[in-house]
Amino acid sequence: MEKLLIHNIGLLATPRGREARSGKAQGEICLLRGAWILLEGDRIAALGTGEAPETDARRLDAEGRLVTPGLVDAHTHLVFGGWRQNELGLKLHGAGYLDILAAGGGILSTVKATRAATEDELFDKARAALDEMLALGVTTAEAKSGYGLDLETELKQLRVTRRLNREHPMDLVSTFLGAHALPPEYKDDREGYLRLLCDTVIPRVAEEGLAEYCDVFCETGVFSADESRRILEAGLRHGLLPKIHADEIDPIGGSRLAGELRAVSAEHLIVCPEEGIRALAQGGVIACCLPATSFYLGSAFAPVREMIEAGVPVALASDFNPGSCPSLNLQLVMNLACLRYKMTPEETLTAVTLNGAAAIGRAGEIGSLEPGKLADLVIWDSPDLDYLCYRMGSNLAGLVLKKGQIVKREK
Amino acid sequence: MEKLLIHNIGLLATPRGREARSGKAQGEICLLRGAWILLEGDRIAALGTGEAPETDARRLDAEGRLVTPGLVDAHTHLVFGGWRQNELGLKLHGAGYLDILAAGGGILSTVKATRAATEDELFDKARAALDEMLALGVTTAEAKSGYGLDLETELKQLRVTRRLNREHPMDLVSTFLGAHALPPEYKDDREGYLRLLCDTVIPRVAEEGLAEYCDVFCETGVFSADESRRILEAGLRHGLLPKIHADEIDPIGGSRLAGELRAVSAEHLIVCPEEGIRALAQGGVIACCLPATSFYLGSAFAPVREMIEAGVPVALASDFNPGSCPSLNLQLVMNLACLRYKMTPEETLTAVTLNGAAAIGRAGEIGSLEPGKLADLVIWDSPDLDYLCYRMGSNLAGLVLKKGQIVKREK
Repeated sequence: MEKLLIHNIGLLATPRGREARSGKAQGEICLLRGAWILLEGDRIAALGTGEAPETDARRLDAEGRLVTPGLVDAHTHLVFGGWRQNELGLKLHGAGYLDILAAGGGILSTVKATRAATEDELFDKARAALDEMLALGVTTAEAKSGYGLDLETELKQLRVTRRLNREHPMDLVSTFLGAHALPPEYKDDREGYLRLLCDTVIPRVAEEGLAEYCDVFCETGVFSADESRRILEAGLRHGLLPKIHADEIDPIGGSRLAGELRAVSAEHLIVCPEEGIRALAQGGVIACCLPATSFYLGSAFAPVREMIEAGVPVALASDFNPGSCPSLNLQLVMNLACLRYKMTPEETLTAVTLNGAAAIGRAGEIGSLEPGKLADLVIWDSPDLDYLCYRMGSNLAGLVLKKGQIVKREK
Repeated sequence: MEKLLIHNIGLLATPRGREARSGKAQGEICLLRGAWILLEGDRIAALGTGEAPETDARRLDAEGRLVTPGLVDAHTHLVFGGWRQNELGLKLHGAGYLDILAAGGGILSTVKATRAATEDELFDKARAALDEMLALGVTTAEAKSGYGLDLETELKQLRVTRRLNREHPMDLVSTFLGAHALPPEYKDDREGYLRLLCDTVIPRVAEEGLAEYCDVFCETGVFSADESRRILEAGLRHGLLPKIHADEIDPIGGSRLAGELRAVSAEHLIVCPEEGIRALAQGGVIACCLPATSFYLGSAFAPVREMIEAGVPVALASDFNPGSCPSLNLQLVMNLACLRYKMTPEETLTAVTLNGAAAIGRAGEIGSLEPGKLADLVIWDSPDLDYLCYRMGSNLAGLVLKKGQIVKREK
């Protein structure tokens, strides 16, 4: 088995533990100065400080830099056709998400482009995004469907994700989000679309093993809390664990529902009320917050400090999508978490590693640097964690290792 | 003379004219589809649409992409010692710029580090920043002194800038900013420092030809409008043209002074009052706005739409510095200009090219793609100007050419 010893690590920073579904995990970071880490094959074999052990491993000098786990982006809409730069002008003139949607633009134009695209086109486009994410230090990502809104295209999106997961170094976790919007052909037949999702698409997705999670956009003008419950319960019956886009624009009960269903995660939570935060805490739900979307839309920022105080573990993700967040840069998300959520660099690191991993059911394998876990890690052009969160607009990922292999080598 | 024909340009976008000191220039963009551009040596020889001319030039295929002038970053504090990541924690707890300054931190800690650094150390650190700026599409930048606050260190900073200008492909324009703060050794003797600046440092800087501009931080707790006038007039007597940090935190008369002195540019202008905007318009002053600083500090954004309506030409710059804006990414500034200033992509392009060039006296040489100007240009991984401003967090600069030479080659 191939062995690699990374030595001369200025600072090794990692959350601890295999499971972050407890508020105590937020900000509990292990910091080792002058550390080394020994990889065997695709796993971490050992790590420590002081003199590196005698070993026949190849040696890699970290040159006194910061090493952390590879970042985990637990919320992306990775696979889609087209872009929506034409909406920039509309936004400059004050149109909101729901305005653009009501005008037949927004997500529905992406649905059109995604339906029209071939599987290969979608694959090539998403692969380019994954290359860039990897270069920015992300080693695992979630990918949602939801730009098909019909059986065939939802399956097409999910198959592209499966193929990317096989052919690209990035590990992907797949989420079915057929309930992302009401498709145009069902605009006068909500019930018909709900039945299609629950009776046809979800069973098929589960049968083909194309997703682990089922998500729904619970929002005014999209799906009500009752409709969301129906969809997530259909998912559960077929083994898909629940996630939910909750309280992004209007607080219509999404976070409460997340708590009741003990969802794995609730997403956005920009306008999450106090009772919603309590529901998340009681349900053991991870809050997956998306500050780049708040920033891009110019909307408010989720009440993250209140969540952390209430014991809700917080993950941070990019929300990469062609409408409300055309950015896949998780380093920028870390800047925003500090500047806008007032998270500390330690809390931020946990949120983009261990809590992100927990939000996609991978906390046993990734998200922290511990013997036995996968050797996914980043050597940063940074001396410490503060610097990583403080510098902005530069890609600070020096070397990126995925399962022990160097997938990005310096600039 | 070496010739290069760049063909198959999907969209060539450039401001027009040699001088942007008129509000009319903002947003007047020439857009050519299916264009070519012929370079001879370090200059643009010709450009057009349709069939490329027969020529013995080497050919470079732009692959249908967007081409613009190289970006101009008209406001940076390029040369400094150390970083200030330790202040991130203070900012998370609500400390403002003036609070940190009053506590002896902030700029004064950078002054300490800059005084302690050798010329070579400052050179190497700034060179790394220039490499990155170039890779992001910036081909000309301004660099201010102002972290020395004594004769010796101000000269050291300016000499580093001169050496970088000679040894690095980036063109640099030098600004003397000795009036950036009151140095600790003069904290009980303002008059003594003003005399040092006016009677000793400015004459010496001018004599050694180390700067073209003289700038001052006109702000509560820093330099008053009267003191600023005194310094800028001393600069003028020695041939240094005036720039001024005005109305960043408190509107104490900086923009009015800029208008009266017919300053080349006024910087920041976050709280610029209506009468200040009128003064800028009347004085032909370029507003150099720095949205990444507003963003980083969480402060308000300059009233850019009002400026444009009043006929004030607006330039955009990074304000790269270790305290209030540790980002040198001008693409992020373009995102912010659209999202927060509500500038159109066309206005934004003018602001980071021709108006930036005008703000540092280079509009005759750079800032637009026209025969006779320097061949500084960027081939973007973007089909159009909207996309360039809409995507966020990715470096979209594909190829960067400086004086006709490729200085960045794809990713």
